[in-house]
This record gives sequence, C-alpha cells and structure tokens, in this order.
Amino acid sequence: MTVFTASTTAPVNIATLKYWGKRDKTLNLPTNSSISVTLAQEDLRTLTSVATSEEFSKDNLWLNGVEEGIKGERTIACLKDLRRLRKELEEQDSSLPKLSEWGLHIVSENNFPTAAGLASSAAGFAALVVAIAKLYKLPQSMSEISKIARKGSGSACRSLFGGYVAWEMGDLENGEDSKAVEVAPLEHWPTMKAAILVVSDDKKDTPSTTGMQSTVATSDLFQWRIKEVVPKRFEQMKKSIAERDFQTFGELTMKDSNSFHAVCLDSYPPIFYLNDTSKKIIKLIHKLNEQEGKIIAAYTFDAGPNAVIYYEEENVTKVLGLIHKYFHQVPGWEKIADKVNGFEDSTIEFDTDAYKGVSRIILTKIGSGPQETTQSLVNEKGLPK
Amino acid sequence: MTVFTASTTAPVNIATLKYWGKRDKTLNLPTNSSISVTLAQEDLRTLTSVATSEEFSKDNLWLNGVEEGIKGERTIACLKDLRRLRKELEEQDSSLPKLSEWGLHIVSENNFPTAAGLASSAAGFAALVVAIAKLYKLPQSMSEISKIARKGSGSACRSLFGGYVAWEMGDLENGEDSKAVEVAPLEHWPTMKAAILVVSDDKKDTPSTTGMQSTVATSDLFQWRIKEVVPKRFEQMKKSIAERDFQTFGELTMKDSNSFHAVCLDSYPPIFYLNDTSKKIIKLIHKLNEQEGKIIAAYTFDAGPNAVIYYEEENVTKVLGLIHKYFHQVPGWEKIADKVNGFEDSTIEFDTDAYKGVSRIILTKIGSGPQETTQSLVNEKGLPK
Repeated sequence: MTVFTASTTAPVNIATLKYWGKRDKTLNLPTNSSISVTLAQEDLRTLTSVATSEEFSKDNLWLNGVEEGIKGERTIACLKDLRRLRKELEEQDSSLPKLSEWGLHIVSENNFPTAAGLASSAAGFAALVVAIAKLYKLPQSMSEISKIARKGSGSACRSLFGGYVAWEMGDLENGEDSKAVEVAPLEHWPTMKAAILVVSDDKKDTPSTTGMQSTVATSDLFQWRIKEVVPKRFEQMKKSIAERDFQTFGELTMKDSNSFHAVCLDSYPPIFYLNDTSKKIIKLIHKLNEQEGKIIAAYTFDAGPNAVIYYEEENVTKVLGLIHKYFHQVPGWEKIADKVNGFEDSTIEFDTDAYKGVSRIILTKIGSGPQETTQSLVNEKGLPK
Repeated sequence: MTVFTASTTAPVNIATLKYWGKRDKTLNLPTNSSISVTLAQEDLRTLTSVATSEEFSKDNLWLNGVEEGIKGERTIACLKDLRRLRKELEEQDSSLPKLSEWGLHIVSENNFPTAAGLASSAAGFAALVVAIAKLYKLPQSMSEISKIARKGSGSACRSLFGGYVAWEMGDLENGEDSKAVEVAPLEHWPTMKAAILVVSDDKKDTPSTTGMQSTVATSDLFQWRIKEVVPKRFEQMKKSIAERDFQTFGELTMKDSNSFHAVCLDSYPPIFYLNDTSKKIIKLIHKLNEQEGKIIAAYTFDAGPNAVIYYEEENVTKVLGLIHKYFHQVPGWEKIADKVNGFEDSTIEFDTDAYKGVSRIILTKIGSGPQETTQSLVNEKGLPK
C-alpha cells in the first residue's frame, strides 16, 4: 500500500485590527479588513499531518488524540476546494496519482491547552489547509491558499503568514479577492513580544459567529465602525508597522479592541466579552503608559476575556516587571524564571487581588508562518501514531 | 427682621435616552437631546428651603445638615441668573422688596442616602432653582426656569417636570433654546414602575463631566451616535410614550443604555461603568423578556453600575417575582413585604450569588414634578432648623 503523507505546523494569530462581522456567512467574507500579528509557534501552534492512499475509502480526522471524523460543513468546504485544485493538476498531467479521489486522514495536535480559550481554530484550519496543499503539491501562493483557509475559519487565513498580516476584505461576491497578505515579515520588526493573560470566566461566551451576526443585524454603531473607523485605521496601522512605530501601532491596537467590544455592547441583546478582570488589566496598561509618558504596551482582547499585551523587547523589564509584580502567583513564569530578578520594580499601584481572575500567563513573541516539519503524527499506514 | 422663605421638593429623573456629551461645558449644552422618566418623590426627592432677608450679608448653603457654603461655580451661575430675573421684576415694580440684592440661605436635604450613588445632583439643582424662583415669585414657565437648572447640572433641567420629560438640545450658542419640556404628564401613562438595584462597586467611577469630555474628544463611534442614532431614537421614543407602547419604549431604553456605555468603552482610555453584576442584571432582564415573548421589563444604567428597571404595573408579579427570587437577600423589600407572597415563582435560571453584588433595592414608580410643600427646613430667622 502506498501512503502519501505531509505535515506542517501553523501558528496562532492575534488581531490588532479586529475582524467582526461577516457579509457572507458561508464564504466567511468579512465586513472589514483586519490586521494581525502571528505568534511564535514554540509557544502556540497546531501540528497537522495528513495522509492519503488509494486504500482510504473515506475522510477522517483525529484531533488531540480523539477521532472526531469529518463533521463540520466548513471542513468539508475546505477539502472540496483543495481537491478541486488537485484535480486540475491531475487533469494537466495524467501521470500524477489521483490523490483528489482518495480518502484523507487528518491528524492534528495543539501544543497548548484548548481550555485556555485561545482561538485555536485559526491555527487548526491553517494547518489543515497547508498540510493538504503540500500533500497535493499545489502550486498556488499562500495568499491563494489563504482563501481556502478563510472558508474554514475567517481569521485562519491570517495564520498562513508569519510576522504582520492583513486580511483584505475584498469586494467580490464570490470572495476570490478576500485573502491574507503579508504586511511585513517577521524580520522587518522582530522585537514584538506578547504576554497573554488567560482570564478565568464563569460564563460561556457567545460564540463569535453568533456574536458577529447579532452585531451586524442590530448594532447601530457597527455601520459607522466598518464604513468609517476601520478603513482609516487599516491604512494607519499598516503605516505604523512599515515605520516600526509602536506609539501609533499600540494606540490603534487598543482603540480597535475597544471599538470592537463597544459594538458588541451596542448589539441587542448586548454581548459582553470583557469581564471585571479584563477591565483591570486595561487600566493597568493605561497606568503604565501614563507613567512612561508614552505607549510601551498595548492590550487587545478577542471574543473572550483573555488579554494579549503587545510590547517591544526593549521594554521587557518594565512591562513584565509590572505584570510579574501583580500576577507572579499564576503559572507561566517558569520559562523566564532566571530573568525575573532583572525586572524593574514597578511603583504603579494596583489591585493586589487581580491575579485571582487569571489562570495562567503565556509569554511569547512574534513568529513565523506555517513551517515544514519532519515531525509526523501519522504512521506508515496513514493512521495516528 | 423680615425673612422671606420658600420651600419645594424636586424629584430624581432617570434618563431612558441618555445625555452624554457637552457641546458647551460652561452652559451645559448637550450634544444630543435626551428623555427621562421622573421618579416618585415619596422614595427619592430633595427638599430645599430658601430664605432671604435684608440682614443676610452673604449666601450660604447647608446640605444634609452640613454647612457647605456656596463654592461651586455652577451654583453661583444659577444664583446669578435667578437674581437677574428677580431684578427685572423689581425694576418693573419699585414697590417690590429688593430680594435680588440680599443674601440667600439655602437648606437642602435628600430622603435617600447619597452613598447609594444615585444622581442626586439633578434633584438638588432642580430644587434649588425652583425654590428660589418661588421665593422671587418669578413669572417664568418651568421650561424657562429649566434652563437655569441646566446650568447647575445638565440633567437637572429634566427634574422640573413630572412624568415623561424631554431635554431639547437646542441650536443656539447661548443655550436659550436648550430646555426641558413635558413629553407627557404622569397621568398619561401612570402605570410605569421602576426598581433600582443599587450595585456595589469597589472602584471610583469616572465623574460624568470628565467622562463626557473624554468621549466627545476621543470616541470615533460617538459622532455617529449623536448625529444618526439618537435623533431617530428621540422621535421614536416620544412616539412610544404618546402611544403607551412599552414594547418600543423598553427596547429603545435598553438599546440607548447600551449605546451610551458602548461609546464610553470606545473612549480612549476606555470608560467602564457597568461591572460584572450590572451585566448579570442585563442578562436576567433579557431572559425574562425572552421567556415572555415580549418586553415587559427594560434596564437602563447611568454613569455607574446601578440598574434601573422600568416595567408596567400589570407585570409587577412577574418582574418583581423574578428579581425577588434572586435578590430577596438585599434590603429594600420591606415596603412591599405583604405583597411578596403574590409574586410569581419564576422558572428562570440565574446566578444565585448575584445578590452579593447588590447592596439594596429601591422600589418606586413614575412621579410628579417639583411640589409646593408646607415642610420647611428653615426657622423664622432663616437658619436651618
């Protein structure tokens, strides 16, 4: 039995200009363009191996060691698109094995706990699509492939690049111009760091797809956000990245996070993702920036209470010094335990109980896009190891 | 010694279409029109007595038993306007005593704890201005007098009327057309009730004047709110009051509260008035309305975490039944203890710990405007009793 396999890793990305609102739910076409920073895969990544063989009668998926099967419409849509592209190759060159007709085995694993509430679907769909594109030896560019990942999970398209990434919303109804592009590679501005404060929450958040639909349908302020606020910010943020201007980048990042949560609150019924702990972290970062007289740290919050704090390496002792002072009790500092003594002792006053609302900290940084890997999650029979 | 005295009471009002943003800070001219419901004075009112005499060399103010003196610029501005109107009368009729030239003693008391965080400044300035207008026997209408109260505290102008009140923002730079008017008297729709949940908070809120200035200066979404959202809502809400249409009135009230808090969150740095308890109450009210299949209760939140829940008398057992079930531990139910057994036993599931974030409940209803009163807080010498 001949089994063809391929493996890839794919990163998590955290938007600094938020995607919120679909103009087409099936195709995952957004109501506005967005921008993200790709995070380092040593801390957060999905590893996906795929296998195909003439002997495989059907598709199957194993996620974090559990056989899930292919259930989701979105996964099916991605597989369909990838097979179509493979088929084009096979039609051009009849010597190619007919992989497009065979079953696919997909085995996927995250190196971080799903329970952390970090959007793992972006990394997951990016890895799935890239692994199969590799398996199929598709000649398309990453931007082209990103359109397929987009159908899996909108923000997944941004995980096809490292560094600073834009998802251009596009105009076309069929979504063929709604794709990810590189704003700047990792090497352009490699000093970007991120601290993720995983905030505990007792309530279940509104799923982002449901939330987006509600905002689009009910928020009066949303129309202004997508028509006027985001388009300007999109250009300004790209410029701030081009100029490595953290002042502007940080301010836009914080403002856009607030704007996104504002239109959630303006939805009917209102949607709340920030909790009291999130708000405390926001205030802490503003206090730090005020004390410094400039923006050295910028928060952003996705559809949940977790805080992602971007900062530049040169300010690590100030930023992590402050966070460590008030959150040293939570796990996640082990990684840099030897550096903690070098932190500045912040004079900023803060709620000494705030750490109780945080379950862990993840210290990471900007990272690269999907990577080739010799690691494989499938054995020679194309089954999970 | 001849001492002239007058006394009045004035009510608290809670906006259903929010005032947020000043176009002129000195004159308290708003960036949008607003609407409120006046609350019953048996539960929440300020009683103010004023006295004047040729013997009084200076103005003085006693607030809740404490001699405060006249310090605030806003109080001084009100007194100046009232004296000017009195002076016009004195110039027309030289037989009138020259009250405009004498010192004023102002003695004021609330029947509710200031600590509750309920906006007492509206009732306070309304009572002060109306009491002096009475003392001076000013012929001006309540709308005219409301322009003076407005200079004391913007929302105070709405406390000059009972029932349903609009504050028309006006266009003029001098503010002469920015005044309160009656949308409908209490008798038009007398069945409106209100339950106030006083929410405990460990942080100090951003003062509303500071907050408004920040929102006007920094929120991108705010411009849309004042230009497009509020003007439409203003007409719709007046219509809903004219038609006693609680469905529409309630929905607009909730949406406008959310919109106001959304532009606070969109300010930079963001302003948060709602806390986790406020959010739980919001969700509880939406659950109730969903279960009923129509809006029978509507929340609104001012610049703080306290919830005001409007409902109609016919739904008292459903609305208070639900609130009592989950908040019976907090004080404030004594008043209707004999009716509690008649409450419906709600089947709605809710956080049984939420009551811990609430310090008291105030059960009240729509009420009338400033009232003549035989009660006086001053003695025959014009000093506090």
